[in-house]
Amino acid sequence: MDLNELRQQIDIIDNEILDKFIKRMELCLDVARYKKENNIGVMQSSREQEIIDRVKDMSGEKYKDSTALLFTNIMDISKSFQQREINRGLTFIEKKPFEIKPSAKAGCFGVKGSNSEEAARKIFGKEKELSFYSEFEDVFKAVCDGEIDFGVVPLQNSSTGSITQTYDLMRKYNVYINKMIRVSIRHCLAAKGTDITGIEKVYSHPQALMQCSDFMTSKGLTPVNYESTSSAAELVSKSDEKIAAICSPECAKLYGLDIIGENISDYETNFTRFICISKDFEVEENADIISVQLTIPNEEGSLYRLLTKFTVLGLNLLKLESRPRHEGNFDVVFYLDFEGTISDERINSLLIHLEKDATDFKFLGNYKELV
Amino acid sequence: MDLNELRQQIDIIDNEILDKFIKRMELCLDVARYKKENNIGVMQSSREQEIIDRVKDMSGEKYKDSTALLFTNIMDISKSFQQREINRGLTFIEKKPFEIKPSAKAGCFGVKGSNSEEAARKIFGKEKELSFYSEFEDVFKAVCDGEIDFGVVPLQNSSTGSITQTYDLMRKYNVYINKMIRVSIRHCLAAKGTDITGIEKVYSHPQALMQCSDFMTSKGLTPVNYESTSSAAELVSKSDEKIAAICSPECAKLYGLDIIGENISDYETNFTRFICISKDFEVEENADIISVQLTIPNEEGSLYRLLTKFTVLGLNLLKLESRPRHEGNFDVVFYLDFEGTISDERINSLLIHLEKDATDFKFLGNYKELV
Repeated sequence: MDLNELRQQIDIIDNEILDKFIKRMELCLDVARYKKENNIGVMQSSREQEIIDRVKDMSGEKYKDSTALLFTNIMDISKSFQQREINRGLTFIEKKPFEIKPSAKAGCFGVKGSNSEEAARKIFGKEKELSFYSEFEDVFKAVCDGEIDFGVVPLQNSSTGSITQTYDLMRKYNVYINKMIRVSIRHCLAAKGTDITGIEKVYSHPQALMQCSDFMTSKGLTPVNYESTSSAAELVSKSDEKIAAICSPECAKLYGLDIIGENISDYETNFTRFICISKDFEVEENADIISVQLTIPNEEGSLYRLLTKFTVLGLNLLKLESRPRHEGNFDVVFYLDFEGTISDERINSLLIHLEKDATDFKFLGNYKELV
Repeated sequence: MDLNELRQQIDIIDNEILDKFIKRMELCLDVARYKKENNIGVMQSSREQEIIDRVKDMSGEKYKDSTALLFTNIMDISKSFQQREINRGLTFIEKKPFEIKPSAKAGCFGVKGSNSEEAARKIFGKEKELSFYSEFEDVFKAVCDGEIDFGVVPLQNSSTGSITQTYDLMRKYNVYINKMIRVSIRHCLAAKGTDITGIEKVYSHPQALMQCSDFMTSKGLTPVNYESTSSAAELVSKSDEKIAAICSPECAKLYGLDIIGENISDYETNFTRFICISKDFEVEENADIISVQLTIPNEEGSLYRLLTKFTVLGLNLLKLESRPRHEGNFDVVFYLDFEGTISDERINSLLIHLEKDATDFKFLGNYKELV
């Protein structure tokens, strides 16, 4: 047979597979309805294993891995449909509208002039009184204790990646993300006077130091870890030593420092994503990003099967990141961002399912990014 | 119909689907042989899109997403088989045996007494003369310049996660991983004298400071970024100021420091994985981990389809991590570790395929972990 003949044969077979598959889906929906009426759960892994074993046996050595994967996929696609049938009418989480009352108290990481302040100002405006916290964790604590209603912390930088500490804190504290804010980061080297001679130590937040490491190395400067870019600027302004800080030009100005080097970041475009967190689950009208975290079993194919649940709904994964679970081994927690809204019935069903099915599942919020 | 009848119906349909699917696989192998003889590539995405479009049209609104995913899977499974047929007899990379000649020069990150030295000693023995480098990047440069044959750097910690800088350097320099070494990390607080009173600043490598952040916070200590745990210990030993370092007990002893706090790490089990890198691709006899990095298109389902390639071969993913690509947006590079050896014909075929097909694909090595 030539290529065309082979393809025609494949097309005929595909039509037959399609026909059988749709019949199978209809039968699975009947199973779901039956189970719903009789209060039986969707997951019956013994039945699943039975099907996989039978299919492998019938396939022979050459095809057993391929057919096992095919039928795993078929069952995962079916289950997604069954779950929608079973979860119809249930609500994963009651949503409250996201609203900033004039009396709302807000705070952020860092000090006056920090990038976090700029992020907070983008949401709360120039006039809002803000509380400043020197540690990421203090912002989380203040939100949980009710000291502030909204807290702003950095989550991710375009060049250095995720701020792992924030991810870990999202797991530790019961808060929700209600907004993401993108802030352009312009780093400069600031000191008293414009002469670099004699300057050796440069103070800043570790993330900022890392983002300017090429510049630092080329000038032979020594990085010194400090709480935040703005507290480093404050330190330099008060110190009698010949030291410098890495901070934003606005921040240098605020503390009366001179700028020795402009745009010293290793990458031309450099921005940070901040999140605004609150104790209650609040959602904006047009929210289109959902974040969750979960642990998956350390089994062959478990990540793949998790992604099947998202892919079958056509959901666009924006981010997939793994973090160690902190118990001293390399078990991982996954952080997933995907496009969508909890008003979508399919996503509502998926979240209900994940909450039941996944280990350590945590829903982190449904929000919009402010660019 | 009751549950049993429904299941019997499903079993009948499954047998039919299985039968059709195996016939399809056989036809696809014929296509592959035809293409190989006539020098045509496996990937013909226009043909794929055509099949998906036709299948969606025939499925109707209710099932179109499900059938599109099913046929994407079917084609990805087929392609994996076709690639094995086409790549038969080709070799992805010629392997050299991993061998440490007595004349081999070795080096590591850090200074004498560092955890990196301990990792290096596990491979090269107690007597080996080692070169020490104060920056991760210097180790990579020394290996590439031929100054040393083997270099040891940390890659991942069980509590704080990946050392992102090492991942970025693996992308920047052309080196291979030939060994992974696991070292238990025991952090202590070391100073001159055992009195903590008056000590404010604690020097150490940022990773070590991060791993002891609960202890630091509880004692009101200020972390100061330093090159390595051992250079921090050296600094404390030479300084007249009342400062402390976080380092291993061995390292404290080496620099004649007293131990104020033992096992101050936030997590009981704390270990770091180091890698040994070399310029040439060298493989141990029993190597069972393969690392690669690649970029995937920012398209719906692209990560899922990448994982299909691994899942269909039954390959166990040990790690999947994303890092920003460093061009100022959130495009990502994926780092994948999976179980296997390049001597496996299926893996050889997969690597040949990924090198052709994936953007920015880089093979990082095939090695064994030394625990």
